[in-house]
Amino acid sequence: MGEAVEILLPTKESSLINGGIDQTVEQNGHQECCWYEEEIDDDLKWSFALNSILHRGVTEYQEIALLDTKHFGKALLIDGKMQSAEIDEFVYHENLIHPALIYHPNPKKVFIMGGGEGSAAREALKHKNVEKVVMCDIDQEVVDFCRRYLKANLEAFNNERLHLIINDAKIELERREEKYDVIVGDLADPVEGGPCYQLYTKSFYSGVLKPKLNHNGIFVTQAGPAGVLTHKEVFSSIYNTLKHVFKYVTAYTAHIPSFVDTWGWVMVSISSSLNASFTYENNLLTSYNQSSVLLNEKHVYTEESARFIHGHGKAYHG
Amino acid sequence: MGEAVEILLPTKESSLINGGIDQTVEQNGHQECCWYEEEIDDDLKWSFALNSILHRGVTEYQEIALLDTKHFGKALLIDGKMQSAEIDEFVYHENLIHPALIYHPNPKKVFIMGGGEGSAAREALKHKNVEKVVMCDIDQEVVDFCRRYLKANLEAFNNERLHLIINDAKIELERREEKYDVIVGDLADPVEGGPCYQLYTKSFYSGVLKPKLNHNGIFVTQAGPAGVLTHKEVFSSIYNTLKHVFKYVTAYTAHIPSFVDTWGWVMVSISSSLNASFTYENNLLTSYNQSSVLLNEKHVYTEESARFIHGHGKAYHG
Amino acid sequence: MGEAVEILLPTKESSLINGGIDQTVEQNGHQECCWYEEEIDDDLKWSFALNSILHRGVTEYQEIALLDTKHFGKALLIDGKMQSAEIDEFVYHENLIHPALIYHPNPKKVFIMGGGEGSAAREALKHKNVEKVVMCDIDQEVVDFCRRYLKANLEAFNNERLHLIINDAKIELERREEKYDVIVGDLADPVEGGPCYQLYTKSFYSGVLKPKLNHNGIFVTQAGPAGVLTHKEVFSSIYNTLKHVFKYVTAYTAHIPSFVDTWGWVMVSISSSLNASFTYENNLLTSYNQSSVLLNEKHVYTEESARFIHGHGKAYHG
Amino acid sequence: MGEAVEILLPTKESSLINGGIDQTVEQNGHQECCWYEEEIDDDLKWSFALNSILHRGVTEYQEIALLDTKHFGKALLIDGKMQSAEIDEFVYHENLIHPALIYHPNPKKVFIMGGGEGSAAREALKHKNVEKVVMCDIDQEVVDFCRRYLKANLEAFNNERLHLIINDAKIELERREEKYDVIVGDLADPVEGGPCYQLYTKSFYSGVLKPKLNHNGIFVTQAGPAGVLTHKEVFSSIYNTLKHVFKYVTAYTAHIPSFVDTWGWVMVSISSSLNASFTYENNLLTSYNQSSVLLNEKHVYTEESARFIHGHGKAYHG
Repeated sequence: MGEAVEILLPTKESSLINGGIDQTVEQNGHQECCWYEEEIDDDLKWSFALNSILHRGVTEYQEIALLDTKHFGKALLIDGKMQSAEIDEFVYHENLIHPALIYHPNPKKVFIMGGGEGSAAREALKHKNVEKVVMCDIDQEVVDFCRRYLKANLEAFNNERLHLIINDAKIELERREEKYDVIVGDLADPVEGGPCYQLYTKSFYSGVLKPKLNHNGIFVTQAGPAGVLTHKEVFSSIYNTLKHVFKYVTAYTAHIPSFVDTWGWVMVSISSSLNASFTYENNLLTSYNQSSVLLNEKHVYTEESARFIHGHGKAYHG
Repeated sequence: MGEAVEILLPTKESSLINGGIDQTVEQNGHQECCWYEEEIDDDLKWSFALNSILHRGVTEYQEIALLDTKHFGKALLIDGKMQSAEIDEFVYHENLIHPALIYHPNPKKVFIMGGGEGSAAREALKHKNVEKVVMCDIDQEVVDFCRRYLKANLEAFNNERLHLIINDAKIELERREEKYDVIVGDLADPVEGGPCYQLYTKSFYSGVLKPKLNHNGIFVTQAGPAGVLTHKEVFSSIYNTLKHVFKYVTAYTAHIPSFVDTWGWVMVSISSSLNASFTYENNLLTSYNQSSVLLNEKHVYTEESARFIHGHGKAYHG
Repeated sequence: MGEAVEILLPTKESSLINGGIDQTVEQNGHQECCWYEEEIDDDLKWSFALNSILHRGVTEYQEIALLDTKHFGKALLIDGKMQSAEIDEFVYHENLIHPALIYHPNPKKVFIMGGGEGSAAREALKHKNVEKVVMCDIDQEVVDFCRRYLKANLEAFNNERLHLIINDAKIELERREEKYDVIVGDLADPVEGGPCYQLYTKSFYSGVLKPKLNHNGIFVTQAGPAGVLTHKEVFSSIYNTLKHVFKYVTAYTAHIPSFVDTWGWVMVSISSSLNASFTYENNLLTSYNQSSVLLNEKHVYTEESARFIHGHGKAYHG
Repeated sequence: MGEAVEILLPTKESSLINGGIDQTVEQNGHQECCWYEEEIDDDLKWSFALNSILHRGVTEYQEIALLDTKHFGKALLIDGKMQSAEIDEFVYHENLIHPALIYHPNPKKVFIMGGGEGSAAREALKHKNVEKVVMCDIDQEVVDFCRRYLKANLEAFNNERLHLIINDAKIELERREEKYDVIVGDLADPVEGGPCYQLYTKSFYSGVLKPKLNHNGIFVTQAGPAGVLTHKEVFSSIYNTLKHVFKYVTAYTAHIPSFVDTWGWVMVSISSSLNASFTYENNLLTSYNQSSVLLNEKHVYTEESARFIHGHGKAYHG
């Protein structure tokens, strides 16, 4: 410590030292502080470490929080459930949007049911031939919250091709006269008491949605968990329901780490088969970075170059 | 309460009532008691509810526990990590064994490195043309533990076609003269300090393993986590390392809920291409029950027949 | 590993090795497996590590579990709340029973409201001049469960001076003609919806309980949490309510680690003041082992003999 | 929903609605978000719900965090351990400071070893006859952090009677010539590897501290956990060590909820007995608000006025 100096506080300058504190924090990768615990099921829960609680709010319809997590980056939670995480939301939103827009010969008008977060619109607007994206979410405050805090979507929210409507998606589709090339269902799962299970019914699909699709129209919807243990909850039922309304139906899935499950989507066409080759391409699409990583990997495993992982999954019994 | 009766305890008979207690427990599906918490990563952990702690032990090499979990059924944990869960271990073990044994024209001799749990042997022994399965695990006590407590594998452990060796898989392969049609790597991931990362090196594959494969020989190994966030840890490296030693190499993956991740396997042949059609069939195989469920689903979603799920993943903003 | 031996399983003898496993477990003091999580308050919960789940049941009135915890020894939980822990239940039960029985000149008849666990009776029966202990608990199955599994209380349950009644304590007191020297309230806190808050009311104390006390009679009741943050919940109210019914009232408290709080008791006399000297002696009583430890401590703190603790509470800023 | 209005985002004004969000948050007392988990012991941990993470830093010596907790109010954590919570820090600091300053006939000069948080100084400065409080803490950044963020201590930090020194308390005491009326040990427990266990040794007390006490001098130190399960860790040893150096020694304790334990202090005098009456007054002091609450309580428990608590501790078996 060297020789001590006696100081009266009012004269002390501490900003440098406090700067020093923050600096040290940056350097400290795995310093743990606080945890967010999410109930996955009655008998299963998980917790992820936080850097900070960025924003929280309660809207007319739901609770909303933006957390800075160590594992998943910034994470949007609605009603305590992981909604979208910086690190892997692209898996959900690319699978929701790109297959339909790639498959459609010339998509000009897109209607998104829900999607207030803005990420579905962001992906749709990447397609230059798209002239108009109508995004219809019921919750004004979620939209304001996401527009304000989700930097990745700010540009999309300000894009002139985006038309934002605050309304119930069913009511809005009914009152509109125009038809769409692609309609996207970016809605919550049909949770008991949730107000949106009506948007998954045969009568809605046949009576409201189908009439709003253009000649080559495609409808794609998120279809809930599709893992080996969960795909019977609603995924298989949504798929089957759509088969009763549309001739051409295909389903595909991808594992989303921050959802702790494999997720499912169902896509339908009113004009032509979404053939197997599509599914195949789509699988390439969804696993694109894995595939490319496999092909580009240069590392060779030797005693000297051994690459290790944080031990999880299979433990040693070799 | 009716009229109270005064009783001296020694004469009381309480077995019926205690029976009643247990009975009530059976009826009580979601009665919670205790939790097992597993660290998935430094900044991510999860907990699953337990019915009971069935057995625990510490061997020369590792800690081992058999838990009766509410969500995954009976679960085997080694060194605190989920090793195998009743509800989805088939996904891991079917992917490990069946593609290789289906693809090989006539597999007679199989060598399993590790696999002390017995499930890999169980799946291999389902192939009637297989005459001999050598299972070589280093940990006598894990083998004894699993043989004693994993009822699903008891028959396999007692099968006369199974030859169990307690030894280091590398030493054992070196000392043996016979060659094998299929060699299976059911080893731990190359965790730092773990004794088995040598079994993932180029020198082991080329110098020890390859010479023990017959003309049409196939080698398949579990290749660690292969999810969108984790496939670069070791999966891509194992794949690339094998490409330096074998001409025909293919990789495939499947999501395993109790591993909280998508898992990877790499399969190699010394004689002929493991072509795309294989991968395709294999994907059908791995997602067999999902596919069949989709095709066999009868439920149609209407307001009246609404099917709900325990809300997770996407929350409402429709 | 030395030279490997090839074995066919049916001939293997594994009991020795399994014995070895259990042995190793004994040696392994802090091997962690599973946790029990208890909600202390909406915004506060704690978890303790378990060795095993000994027994669980559901009775007509409540859920019950006996857990073997690492920190508190065997712990009895009712409706998910810590009820009694091997390591510190003596603090609760000695404070409940001994002050009253020491203070009463000649206690012969004791009535315990509740106390189905058997520990209150066990402490009362230690007083040789006590001729009869009536213990009246409403829950037959809890009594059976505790009698069967709480070894520390088995002798008390079999003691001929104990008269066990299964009935509501209020109804039972009303129907009885005999009076008691000491009545003990070993009841649950007046939790909303709980059936026993009536046993804390002024009308019960004056109309039912007081008439059943002999000339020198003493009534003592547990009075809920009495910590700096919690003593206003019910402790102060129970104390004040009793002051409206009895002339001589005193309160005392002790910290009970497994209750995560300081606990309170209120004692009343119908004949003579429970004077301050009592409270003082009683404080000596409750902190007896601390006091004796202080007086008997031989260790002197030097650099060489430094005694350390698992860091908790105040962190370094010396 | 009424009629929907089509809006282009750039013109939208959302501040009101966001204000609405925050407002709603205020109203929502028990909305849960995130948790802080603290390890109390290897086999015991607890978690408290957070409103927000206010500040975090890493200093040369320790990690520091200021959390806004739902249960304890603002809480200061050092190296992950609860250091001081808004709701009950007064129990610790009043017991540390007031008994010594009340007992001393005329305390003018006070030396605080440690105490960088500022709360000990705050309490000492409440005594108007105190002319000078020297507070000597080794960690400049903790002092800066607390001065900046602990509003309750800001006035104390700016008080002209406070002399703040950044130095090791032992070195500082040695280099000073002046003597003190009261010396206060507000140091960390002697945790293994912690730099301050030397400040608890016989040689320090006799060789360094005692010579710096004036004729009527008093030394008081926090003495670690003193609960029924923990008082042998260091409390009894500190007490006994001081008995080898000072003639007049007394110990006292109080339960501190946010420390999950009862805490201990030891006070010594070089001139006169700290008699029992002191201990008695002091107990009145430390439990002052409990006592006054008991005396002032007006509530009487009736069926109509029943007061309930969040069920914890004893569950129903009445």
